[in-house]
Amino acid sequence: MPTYKAPLDDVRFILNEVFPVARLAELPGHEDHTPDLIEAVLAEGAKFVENELLPLNRSGDEEGCHYENGVVRTPQGFPEAYAKFIEGGWTGLSCDPDYGGQGLPHVVNFIMEEFICSANLSFGMYPGLSHGAYNALTLHGTDELKRTYLPKLVDGTWAGTMCLTEPHCGTDLGLIRTKAVPDEAEDGAYAITGTKIFISAGEHDLTENILHLVLAKLPDAPAGTRGISLFLVPKFLPRDDGTPGMRNGVMCGSIEHKMGIKASSTCVMNFDGAKGWLVGQPHKGMRAMFTMMNAARLGVGIQGLGLAEVSYQNAVTYARERLQGRSLTGAKAPDKPADPIIVHPDVRKTLLTMRAHTEGCRALACWVGMNIDIAAKHPDPEARRAADDLVALMTPIVKAYFTDHGFDATNMGMQLYGGHGYIREYGMEQFVRDARIAQIYEGANAIQALDLVGRKLPQDMGRLLRQFFHPVSELLEEAQEDPELLEFAIPLAKAFGKLQQATAIVAQKGMKNPDEAGAASTDYLRLFALVALGYMWLRMVKVARERLPKANGAAGFYDSKIKTARFFMTKSLPQVNALFLSIMAGSRVLMDMDADAF
Amino acid sequence: MPTYKAPLDDVRFILNEVFPVARLAELPGHEDHTPDLIEAVLAEGAKFVENELLPLNRSGDEEGCHYENGVVRTPQGFPEAYAKFIEGGWTGLSCDPDYGGQGLPHVVNFIMEEFICSANLSFGMYPGLSHGAYNALTLHGTDELKRTYLPKLVDGTWAGTMCLTEPHCGTDLGLIRTKAVPDEAEDGAYAITGTKIFISAGEHDLTENILHLVLAKLPDAPAGTRGISLFLVPKFLPRDDGTPGMRNGVMCGSIEHKMGIKASSTCVMNFDGAKGWLVGQPHKGMRAMFTMMNAARLGVGIQGLGLAEVSYQNAVTYARERLQGRSLTGAKAPDKPADPIIVHPDVRKTLLTMRAHTEGCRALACWVGMNIDIAAKHPDPEARRAADDLVALMTPIVKAYFTDHGFDATNMGMQLYGGHGYIREYGMEQFVRDARIAQIYEGANAIQALDLVGRKLPQDMGRLLRQFFHPVSELLEEAQEDPELLEFAIPLAKAFGKLQQATAIVAQKGMKNPDEAGAASTDYLRLFALVALGYMWLRMVKVARERLPKANGAAGFYDSKIKTARFFMTKSLPQVNALFLSIMAGSRVLMDMDADAF
Repeated sequence: MPTYKAPLDDVRFILNEVFPVARLAELPGHEDHTPDLIEAVLAEGAKFVENELLPLNRSGDEEGCHYENGVVRTPQGFPEAYAKFIEGGWTGLSCDPDYGGQGLPHVVNFIMEEFICSANLSFGMYPGLSHGAYNALTLHGTDELKRTYLPKLVDGTWAGTMCLTEPHCGTDLGLIRTKAVPDEAEDGAYAITGTKIFISAGEHDLTENILHLVLAKLPDAPAGTRGISLFLVPKFLPRDDGTPGMRNGVMCGSIEHKMGIKASSTCVMNFDGAKGWLVGQPHKGMRAMFTMMNAARLGVGIQGLGLAEVSYQNAVTYARERLQGRSLTGAKAPDKPADPIIVHPDVRKTLLTMRAHTEGCRALACWVGMNIDIAAKHPDPEARRAADDLVALMTPIVKAYFTDHGFDATNMGMQLYGGHGYIREYGMEQFVRDARIAQIYEGANAIQALDLVGRKLPQDMGRLLRQFFHPVSELLEEAQEDPELLEFAIPLAKAFGKLQQATAIVAQKGMKNPDEAGAASTDYLRLFALVALGYMWLRMVKVARERLPKANGAAGFYDSKIKTARFFMTKSLPQVNALFLSIMAGSRVLMDMDADAF
Repeated sequence: MPTYKAPLDDVRFILNEVFPVARLAELPGHEDHTPDLIEAVLAEGAKFVENELLPLNRSGDEEGCHYENGVVRTPQGFPEAYAKFIEGGWTGLSCDPDYGGQGLPHVVNFIMEEFICSANLSFGMYPGLSHGAYNALTLHGTDELKRTYLPKLVDGTWAGTMCLTEPHCGTDLGLIRTKAVPDEAEDGAYAITGTKIFISAGEHDLTENILHLVLAKLPDAPAGTRGISLFLVPKFLPRDDGTPGMRNGVMCGSIEHKMGIKASSTCVMNFDGAKGWLVGQPHKGMRAMFTMMNAARLGVGIQGLGLAEVSYQNAVTYARERLQGRSLTGAKAPDKPADPIIVHPDVRKTLLTMRAHTEGCRALACWVGMNIDIAAKHPDPEARRAADDLVALMTPIVKAYFTDHGFDATNMGMQLYGGHGYIREYGMEQFVRDARIAQIYEGANAIQALDLVGRKLPQDMGRLLRQFFHPVSELLEEAQEDPELLEFAIPLAKAFGKLQQATAIVAQKGMKNPDEAGAASTDYLRLFALVALGYMWLRMVKVARERLPKANGAAGFYDSKIKTARFFMTKSLPQVNALFLSIMAGSRVLMDMDADAF
């Protein structure tokens, strides 16, 4: 069975030394959120996931969810663990104190989400989805809706869902058929009718009520995505005293049998004149939906990160313990029947690939997370806008690249186990199956790439880009003055040059022919992500080099950072060259073939 | 449920136009094996896999194998399908006519294996393993063993296994503990005792007997791999009349619960003084084992190819039928609610990546397959040696690259299905789970890379390499005279240059420090494979250009070949640049980190 220890040292390094989280305490509302407090909260969180969630991960996968007559039962132990989860206040970690939340910075919640996903992704889906509903209601709900529902979402006694997809439409929500008509009996209420599929946590036994946020069309809706509205549809209609009352007209029709995240219920939800309330303006549901969606996309990126981390930890343990063959340069453990496989260069290459990308992703997640907090709370509107721009720019990259890495890394971890990796009881293949969905849901990764090249790049003549390009340029200039940093700065500068060139070309060619942007999109996102990780590594190695001379007991930690940075720059970053050439090849080689000739 | 049609047109193109299979008919024993005959056989084979094996693939995955008290039951329909399989003579396709085989060229069997793996990989494992046992007995068995067992393996009424791995050793077979002691009661027989794990087809209900080929150590065995012997251990001891008699001391202790290939039984086999017979010389078992292993490695490569093909076919169908969103350049199907997703450049990029590699791999498989036939039957020993060199060189590349592609391609196919890809009933995720094992078994892919750089490159001062480098150089020279081929030849020439440089550097640095070769190994294998596929594409595009003007009805076929070649050269081949740079980074960045610091 896999083991897991939350990477508290690495988190401490990133939050306290690379992007000082102390600065967040200058924001209104975060005055008490000192690094010490944050560290204490995360240490508690680590204990919880290690002791309560990890032990349910394998058993949850084997048992799966049970469906009978509209009722879904989660696997053994899940309801008890969820009860402890909400008792610990983990659902309200970064929620508004006005509604019972702890009001901690979002970046703290990001890190806690990583820990949860490492330990038990399926479990994490339940509170994760509630968080999306919380965001949508907070920003777009009426005061009455907020008063009624937010405290329940914050304390976790009620859960939330996002009901978007229908059998014939996922990406293209303009095609949805679910209808909402004004309720004749109650002013302001609507009757919702239609079928939604792939609804995570659509039905389960963890909470006393479930709040569905449902996209539907009003009778007078314009065609396409401009005619979609968002509704709140509770499973049980709340009584005046706030307790769940009458059952609403929404039922789970069945659950899906999936490749992974088997302990997370994925439901077909049938709405049959269910009573619902409008969230946001009529026909403006896509805007409210994107509030949920953007938060959810970042959350899905974190899932990839969490699975990469837990797979890495187990792969390292195995590589140190598995005795097989001898080092190519002579026995390293001559007293044993064979050397541990970590003596082999390619095993190390696999481990370092996992690690360099995982730690780079974690740093990037924290950078984005802190910018969410700045965007939410900074007194200066210009600082808020700048932070928001960075978050918007990075969202598709975090979603797509982190989840690609999550899948690649879990596969690498599994591969190191050899045949044992393919056997279910070792748990390594579960990480692969669980990681796989993250590349698909909340907008498949190719859709993220289109979002990047089609929306984020051109927005306001590249305004968003500046939030990334400026700090990279600045750091590279600084690094040129420091001979010790040059070996890291030069490869990054080269890769950054490719990114700048590719950006100009994609923007220019894409303006004339959108297919050119489409053809470049996934390569471009990957190229961008690699440069972003390179930037993280240059920041990290800079700090590590400064700290190393006076590090004493922690010298090994900083030394590993430097070596991992070196690996990333020389072994991973060169991929940008291939991506750049593929982008340059343009769209003709793709569009020339007749659809029938495929 | 996935559909599948065997790619007979593509096979015909490769066998009749690219590497004329007609030339094989010049080899002794193949006089009757004309292209027409081969085509007729393959058309029959296609029908069989489409009608009998494909329908059992999903149900076999859902049901899995059943174990009770040492007995293994395969899923519903498998025994009946196997009975038809042997009735059709498919087990003996390329086996020696002296033992009842049809004696067709190996390349025909390769292609049939691809068809089988596309339709039902789990099913294919049963006859596939028998083939390994057939090879080992044919080359290393005594006349008596051959007489007794080969006809049964050829007609498929008995099956075979390869019993190598033990709980503490997979790659490092020098560590095996299974013992063989001379049987006091019977001259020439041995008593085998030990436990083997991960034994595919170790126990099942398809055949009346199962022949285990078991690695074990004799009492006087030297330590390590030089002290391993190979034994034949039948489940039932044959009576004098050739029918299965007394039960032998070998039992299946349990079966594994795996990520995929669930209809293939993976067994723990307990040998408890089981009666066995030596195959080959005492202590020389590794040699005989490699006979099985090399054939098995090529067979595993074919598994990757087969799964890539079936996933591609279903992905294309889905991409043409799934209506979602609009083309970036304006509606292409304005009469429909949305365009089919095949209008999107990135969807096409995914499909073309799958296709360009799959068709390239198929051509390479056929080239290698025909060289197996030349190595076996050519009257000129020099021609036999040259062919054998090519096969030896290409074996690790076929095993590792084809299976990596099989996994990548099945994932791409699944990704195109969006959320539906993650749901079991659509079948796309099964291909991913089934494909995953091929990267692991018969020597994990990193071991293949070590075989390439450590054994195949240095062998006789690079003698093996010449069998690949010469024909590539020749074709590139030819192509330079043909202006129409230049656009394809130039990228290949560049990539080939990188391969030559990398080869020289790996050989040179690896001689001084074997870790340098180890550090480069997986990148080098990938680089080599990409050049090999590029070579296949240049050969194919050359033929396609020649045929196109007079092709009439088949013009679309040749035109697609040209466009796919163009895609490969411009979008896939540039990866060699990144691989080259990663190789150049050397081993220091990998070996510098303390094992404890990971």
